[in-house]
Amino acid sequence: MILKAPQAFSYRSEEVVLAQHPVILQIARADEAIVKEDFDTLLDIYSENAVLVVEPGRNAVGKAAIRAAFKKIAVYFQNGLQLRQKGMQLLESGDTCLVLALTEVAAPSYPAVERKACYVFNRSADGTWLCCIYNSYGHDIVFHDI
Amino acid sequence: MILKAPQAFSYRSEEVVLAQHPVILQIARADEAIVKEDFDTLLDIYSENAVLVVEPGRNAVGKAAIRAAFKKIAVYFQNGLQLRQKGMQLLESGDTCLVLALTEVAAPSYPAVERKACYVFNRSADGTWLCCIYNSYGHDIVFHDI
Repeated sequence: MILKAPQAFSYRSEEVVLAQHPVILQIARADEAIVKEDFDTLLDIYSENAVLVVEPGRNAVGKAAIRAAFKKIAVYFQNGLQLRQKGMQLLESGDTCLVLALTEVAAPSYPAVERKACYVFNRSADGTWLCCIYNSYGHDIVFHDI
Repeated sequence: MILKAPQAFSYRSEEVVLAQHPVILQIARADEAIVKEDFDTLLDIYSENAVLVVEPGRNAVGKAAIRAAFKKIAVYFQNGLQLRQKGMQLLESGDTCLVLALTEVAAPSYPAVERKACYVFNRSADGTWLCCIYNSYGHDIVFHDI
């Protein structure tokens, strides 16, 4: 199934199907949890061995490392991080879903930046989609060492 | 495991690990098969329900549709398609691997274009990595209807 949202979460008629897609709902939950610094809810959305790109060249692997990274990110943005999904497309194949998103990241102390994010979700045995790869930097990571 | 190749397939010392990664080897096989128009070898690299982005807004789903799409692509490029991987990064989580690549597409009748490609591979039960999502257009697909 391939779906599209010119402005994700805006719920215009043609976007209802996408807005109801469980992966989109998980991304909305994750974004809300990041902004609220609700790390328990946030970590529920990640698989055990998930990879988070903290910044180009640096990754956090596994739930404990991802939790620690998000805590540091919250401090870095002086607890004022804001996220806005400006466009999104899903490519779904079996139990795997690739999300391409234009994500605006901003904070009171930080000018808004648009990132070309890539997320991968897997559907677990109970039907829940969990994020296994979270890379908000897209191709910016290609020429960075780990 | 997270790996990096400033110039994929160039096999300089620091890239040996990446060059030997089975997903990179599959991409090299796929690129060679595309150029040679060896569609049997090419289709072996895709999973049964794989999704290929033919162009932004148009996808081929499943092996038969992907084979037909690659045949049309070969004709479109007047049987002279050339591919060059200029940089590549892998993000691997369990049996799922996201590849971000800078891929140069060229043909005698077609000026070279660099694409920011996103590929997703899954490891099957026998250990083989198969491509389930092949999107050479990256974020160019976000604002296109399917």
